[in-house]
Amino acid sequence: MRYLLTLILLCLSAAPANAQQPAETWILVQDMWGNPAYSMLTLVRVGEQLTGDIDGDPLHGRATAGTIEFSSQAKGGGIYRFSGSQTGTTMAGKADFPDNNFPDRRALHTFTARRIADRPAGAPRTWHFQPVDYANSFDPHRAPVLTIWPGDSVETSTVDSGGVDAAGNTVALFGNPQTGPFFIAGAAPGDMLAVHIKRLRLNRDYADSLDTIVGRALGSSLVARAGELGKPVRWTLDRKAGRARPQGASGALKDFSIAVRPMLGGLAVAPGFGSAPLSTGDTGPFGGNMDFNEVVEGNIVYLPVQQPGALLYLGDAHALQGDGETSQYALETSMDVAFRVELIKGKRIAGPRVESPDRIMVLGQAGSLDEALKSASTGMILWLQQDYGLTLSQTAQILGTAMHYSVANLAGRSVGVAAKLDKAVLPPKATAPVPPR
Amino acid sequence: MRYLLTLILLCLSAAPANAQQPAETWILVQDMWGNPAYSMLTLVRVGEQLTGDIDGDPLHGRATAGTIEFSSQAKGGGIYRFSGSQTGTTMAGKADFPDNNFPDRRALHTFTARRIADRPAGAPRTWHFQPVDYANSFDPHRAPVLTIWPGDSVETSTVDSGGVDAAGNTVALFGNPQTGPFFIAGAAPGDMLAVHIKRLRLNRDYADSLDTIVGRALGSSLVARAGELGKPVRWTLDRKAGRARPQGASGALKDFSIAVRPMLGGLAVAPGFGSAPLSTGDTGPFGGNMDFNEVVEGNIVYLPVQQPGALLYLGDAHALQGDGETSQYALETSMDVAFRVELIKGKRIAGPRVESPDRIMVLGQAGSLDEALKSASTGMILWLQQDYGLTLSQTAQILGTAMHYSVANLAGRSVGVAAKLDKAVLPPKATAPVPPR
Amino acid sequence: MRYLLTLILLCLSAAPANAQQPAETWILVQDMWGNPAYSMLTLVRVGEQLTGDIDGDPLHGRATAGTIEFSSQAKGGGIYRFSGSQTGTTMAGKADFPDNNFPDRRALHTFTARRIADRPAGAPRTWHFQPVDYANSFDPHRAPVLTIWPGDSVETSTVDSGGVDAAGNTVALFGNPQTGPFFIAGAAPGDMLAVHIKRLRLNRDYADSLDTIVGRALGSSLVARAGELGKPVRWTLDRKAGRARPQGASGALKDFSIAVRPMLGGLAVAPGFGSAPLSTGDTGPFGGNMDFNEVVEGNIVYLPVQQPGALLYLGDAHALQGDGETSQYALETSMDVAFRVELIKGKRIAGPRVESPDRIMVLGQAGSLDEALKSASTGMILWLQQDYGLTLSQTAQILGTAMHYSVANLAGRSVGVAAKLDKAVLPPKATAPVPPR
Amino acid sequence: MRYLLTLILLCLSAAPANAQQPAETWILVQDMWGNPAYSMLTLVRVGEQLTGDIDGDPLHGRATAGTIEFSSQAKGGGIYRFSGSQTGTTMAGKADFPDNNFPDRRALHTFTARRIADRPAGAPRTWHFQPVDYANSFDPHRAPVLTIWPGDSVETSTVDSGGVDAAGNTVALFGNPQTGPFFIAGAAPGDMLAVHIKRLRLNRDYADSLDTIVGRALGSSLVARAGELGKPVRWTLDRKAGRARPQGASGALKDFSIAVRPMLGGLAVAPGFGSAPLSTGDTGPFGGNMDFNEVVEGNIVYLPVQQPGALLYLGDAHALQGDGETSQYALETSMDVAFRVELIKGKRIAGPRVESPDRIMVLGQAGSLDEALKSASTGMILWLQQDYGLTLSQTAQILGTAMHYSVANLAGRSVGVAAKLDKAVLPPKATAPVPPR
Repeated sequence: MRYLLTLILLCLSAAPANAQQPAETWILVQDMWGNPAYSMLTLVRVGEQLTGDIDGDPLHGRATAGTIEFSSQAKGGGIYRFSGSQTGTTMAGKADFPDNNFPDRRALHTFTARRIADRPAGAPRTWHFQPVDYANSFDPHRAPVLTIWPGDSVETSTVDSGGVDAAGNTVALFGNPQTGPFFIAGAAPGDMLAVHIKRLRLNRDYADSLDTIVGRALGSSLVARAGELGKPVRWTLDRKAGRARPQGASGALKDFSIAVRPMLGGLAVAPGFGSAPLSTGDTGPFGGNMDFNEVVEGNIVYLPVQQPGALLYLGDAHALQGDGETSQYALETSMDVAFRVELIKGKRIAGPRVESPDRIMVLGQAGSLDEALKSASTGMILWLQQDYGLTLSQTAQILGTAMHYSVANLAGRSVGVAAKLDKAVLPPKATAPVPPR
Repeated sequence: MRYLLTLILLCLSAAPANAQQPAETWILVQDMWGNPAYSMLTLVRVGEQLTGDIDGDPLHGRATAGTIEFSSQAKGGGIYRFSGSQTGTTMAGKADFPDNNFPDRRALHTFTARRIADRPAGAPRTWHFQPVDYANSFDPHRAPVLTIWPGDSVETSTVDSGGVDAAGNTVALFGNPQTGPFFIAGAAPGDMLAVHIKRLRLNRDYADSLDTIVGRALGSSLVARAGELGKPVRWTLDRKAGRARPQGASGALKDFSIAVRPMLGGLAVAPGFGSAPLSTGDTGPFGGNMDFNEVVEGNIVYLPVQQPGALLYLGDAHALQGDGETSQYALETSMDVAFRVELIKGKRIAGPRVESPDRIMVLGQAGSLDEALKSASTGMILWLQQDYGLTLSQTAQILGTAMHYSVANLAGRSVGVAAKLDKAVLPPKATAPVPPR
Repeated sequence: MRYLLTLILLCLSAAPANAQQPAETWILVQDMWGNPAYSMLTLVRVGEQLTGDIDGDPLHGRATAGTIEFSSQAKGGGIYRFSGSQTGTTMAGKADFPDNNFPDRRALHTFTARRIADRPAGAPRTWHFQPVDYANSFDPHRAPVLTIWPGDSVETSTVDSGGVDAAGNTVALFGNPQTGPFFIAGAAPGDMLAVHIKRLRLNRDYADSLDTIVGRALGSSLVARAGELGKPVRWTLDRKAGRARPQGASGALKDFSIAVRPMLGGLAVAPGFGSAPLSTGDTGPFGGNMDFNEVVEGNIVYLPVQQPGALLYLGDAHALQGDGETSQYALETSMDVAFRVELIKGKRIAGPRVESPDRIMVLGQAGSLDEALKSASTGMILWLQQDYGLTLSQTAQILGTAMHYSVANLAGRSVGVAAKLDKAVLPPKATAPVPPR
Repeated sequence: MRYLLTLILLCLSAAPANAQQPAETWILVQDMWGNPAYSMLTLVRVGEQLTGDIDGDPLHGRATAGTIEFSSQAKGGGIYRFSGSQTGTTMAGKADFPDNNFPDRRALHTFTARRIADRPAGAPRTWHFQPVDYANSFDPHRAPVLTIWPGDSVETSTVDSGGVDAAGNTVALFGNPQTGPFFIAGAAPGDMLAVHIKRLRLNRDYADSLDTIVGRALGSSLVARAGELGKPVRWTLDRKAGRARPQGASGALKDFSIAVRPMLGGLAVAPGFGSAPLSTGDTGPFGGNMDFNEVVEGNIVYLPVQQPGALLYLGDAHALQGDGETSQYALETSMDVAFRVELIKGKRIAGPRVESPDRIMVLGQAGSLDEALKSASTGMILWLQQDYGLTLSQTAQILGTAMHYSVANLAGRSVGVAAKLDKAVLPPKATAPVPPR
């Protein structure tokens, strides 16, 4: 492979007449026995010669009028060959590459590709996006609603978890319908996506909740009374005062009112290859229905990209939510949202991170609090190693004196635990990323 | 029983010559096949006639020179008879009461009793207590070091978890040796003890810790490296500045220093009848080695009394501890302590509560975080019902919007989760305690 | 509604000329903002008049040449109206029914329907089905490969978890590709499907496994060594002798050979409305990748139907698997499978049950063993109540003396615990189902 | 130290007149600020010269009429010096050794010692022991009821968990009162004790139980009904037929009868230094209230010795118990017990093991089933490495194909999971113990 590449480079330097075209970005879709697998395809054309890469593995090939063929060798692996036809911004054809089970055999598949538009000229843009439909799963196969670039911002809105919009109309199926997905050009598995929540504002005057206490918060002395709970409670939102109060409250709660703190319950990139679409009530390393009350205006959420383009989803906003979302439904409402995305190439993280002006936070999600806490702690240690250059022993000293743990979510299939550190106690950030030690 | 009691009251009113003496308080110790069982015995003497109660069950009896006999009927149960001799402030004799396994049989036992001194005259007192030895278990059988009364304060000190005192000398066996127990006259099972931490101050210039991360915080990607950890780290305590820094720190931690926040890791009443003495590393509804970083100066800790006199232990102070005590040893040091005790008679709570100027907090402790969180939440709901008069449905609405959960302790056999609410969001306290509804 | 129905019945009896046609069965698909929702539609035609039901709720309507309209009232709910056109065995049109969030508003949707063939005449049939593709999720939307009826049997085959068939060719994407789904005519949510595993036989001479120990089985003293594990181990299957041995074994395992016990790792009905397709590595009340080593020839698996037609999937067979599938991959191989389905209408169960000639077994699946065990125990208690007429107190006495618990699966996102009872200790089955008491 | 020892050996060889006496075995008790710490002291006298060891560390010293002094150096540690007086089979005096916190300082303590009788001549003996009192904690400080030697057998009896004996009399406090402790001469921390249960027989005609289902087995749908449960159920034991039936059963249980399988719920060695006495309802690596239904006649229980003499306790026998002891009380009854002890010197195990004629089993005990299973699996892997010479990779292959997991106990503070393997699938035992690899 190295030999061929050298030849090509020689050709290039020997043939200035064939001017190099700007690199094209494509999404390459291999059909794996009915399952689409997505790759980033970069093509550089010099005459009929093609160079570029597939998910970082260099390719070479040739394109003539309407036909195209190229091949690439995976790092430490076999050769992938593609041949087909190109029509404008789409391709289709056949692919052959090593059989997953038998490295000495070839497996035959088909592929398609679609070209990603080039970045518009000028400074980063702010896009206004008005959703027309909503996604009821975090789906790697759903067509993007918009393609944006790192540095760009989006102004959009979300409907409430029941599918009701700002005008009070049901416009989507209940179950945390999401706005998106947004395709972030250039994002690839192994990158970290930073979602800066610039603005998150109530856009109607009520929220819906329940008077429930989730089973995970109920000791056995109270479980017998769980049946008394679960009634809908509508909350009036006073947007001017920034306060919420339950309608029809009486007794000790007659005058109860509480400051809102708008947050996004759902924020996710699409799950990676091999994963089925995930319920918008579910969570994973990719984010999801995190229901973490630190996903608020002014904070940054970092997610590990799992698919080309990341495919960012958001929804299920809450006017206010206590730790754990113990009432199963928080103060569910629609919301106006503005966010900016940044991309940190090649930065591997294991799960969601959140940064506020004062704190760094890692969310661990698992089937039990015990496992979720391990995940959160381990993610925090990694962060301290990567960005602050601490040794493992030094992270132990920081954690032992300064760790804060809170419980993010108790209402889903997985639960969430957040590990938090005050920036004030941390040493200055390392000037360059540091490998864990 | 009612009949007999009436007779006695008649006798009393008919016999003014036999002036009633002030009630005497005794600790009654029944020997249950080698296991001491403690009761509160109140005796009122009118001539040779005795009235009073055993753990609240009315008794009647007779005392002559040196001999004493009395009996009592347990609520809904059988008759307990005691006969023996009294010498000054001690008694000894035989007891017979219903066989635990066969209600129609009598079981024969021996008993002793020792009289609790009457409350000294005057206002509540402040006692100065200099420990001479330390307890290595939360033991219901250990002789009290001091008897105090509700409203009294104690000024004393604790040694560090390794048994080292303010002067830097080893004076006790490692493993969280405790100061105490303090006998709180009048406290009985079913009461709630309030321990007001008036003062908690560093009294030496160093603390000892480890650079460990407990197994419960380590994801599998890091467990393999756990062997690198566990080294002792001595921290210099700057008492004037109120800051700590690890000695010999280098690299990114070279200039690391952090504000201390002195806390008591251990605070307990003795466990109840049927419990073996508990390790000073263990916890339970009675408190124990809670390692909860809100047990600080200015806060109040509420514990459910399990034994007559409560038997309060304290120790294992930390100059500073992050949530979870992830370093296994926090900044372990000796401490000067001043506390005041109050007693709330007949208020049943299920486990430790903590109150700060701004928050109410309930600590749940169990073998997993999932169970501990249930316990904490359930305890918080009970508090809201008891003191704030909320219905179960109303507690659900408060929790859903305002609950904070943190992780208290990960380093012991049980783990701790704290449920916390800001007082600012709570309705006014009910003027009278309210039964849960 | 009752009034209208009476009118229709009167019309029917007054119009013998319009002979009643046999009932038709349809799958009705309502589009809920892009999400298909499936119902069972039964239609009876008398002239242009339609009666029948939608998921058990009676309907009435009218069909003329090409056009069709009908409506139905949900129990305790609103009216559902459908109008459109019919072409042979398909329909399409518009539907309107109550808005999920606002009962006094109507929501407008579209619908389609497809007719299910009538049951073939004659006795229950045995179908031979040769798969041509495989499913990589338990998907409620995947088109059935075959429609069968209760009492019917199917002879088919499964590929191994890596997608390799009996001939040793990769024919599907790795990750437990499944054969199916089979549509069981008449099955509806609320029914219990009984899958009798008539035959489960090895059809090739090797299986693939790993020398791994899953993280859930590794104490911290061993986690550090987990990196040594994970190597592929190929096992030779001696089909005649019914034994397996690891290829290339040496040392203490040089002569190791063990009897096979073929089982199906994956057996599932499709998840219900509102659930995204689930990974073939996941589990739920609907079954899934249970990896339970009692899903063997001769046993019956009971699953709770979640969708019309049940949509039965099967795959991921193992030549042998210890409890917990601790090696992450069991002895993965392709398999010949024959099964018969029976349907128990209206019998609600909470999760998978398995019956062997000697035992009844309930599988609980959850994010922790503690929760899975609760689920298994609770399911077993329900079984004893439903089929054996035991009171709750009586189930306690059976469980306390005779319960067996085993661990089914440790290798997935959820874990499985099985509760088992010997039939020999159970009382005779109640002659009629008994409501829990 | 080596130098001094050499001198002594020279002296010995130079002084044949001072004939060496048989080694004496003593229990050395150091007082650690009120906490007794026990060591094995071996003394060999040649004239006034003393040699021997303390817990394996060689000592040297001198004894004259009534006075004794000796010292020893801990492996890699400091020097321990003892000086005092001996009177017959007891000693008392002062000890000084390194301060635990400050290695360069000496700590002063007192000590006592008591001599263990020499092994009686002749073959291993069978002792008949009739208990006169019972222990309500697994207590390292309780005086032994009998000293026995490896190979010896004991015939004794246990009372039921409520303290009722074979004659139906209450003779001990409820809460699993234990027979013992038995002092096994020669046993020391680091050894493995094998308890062969030779005989375990019912000795009365009834057992007591409850109709309870423990909280750990109840899903939320049933918790609300838990209040209906908890009533006492007396079972008639037909000792001749070996069957039990609940008295007063009706309905579906009218004719219910089930075969008994007598087992010991409690079997423990005393916990080690630093541990408080443990409740007889608690468990640990030392055994305890394991409530494991494989602790039956014919099986062998292996426990890791924690204290000199091991201090073996037994009690809480059950006529029958299902997995998990879900009824909180199994069929609680008194029992005749015969057991033989063997000692495997220097064999370190992490927790209880059980061996039946057909199986090897390891019990893991922890605060959750998830942690208990890790412990059981890890213990089984260690066993396969130690006794069968398997590599870690080979253990993975055995576990993956042959592991059985059951749930031992759900009714205590900790839960128990058992890992089991059929001996039939195991390779031959290694001829010599093998270090784990």
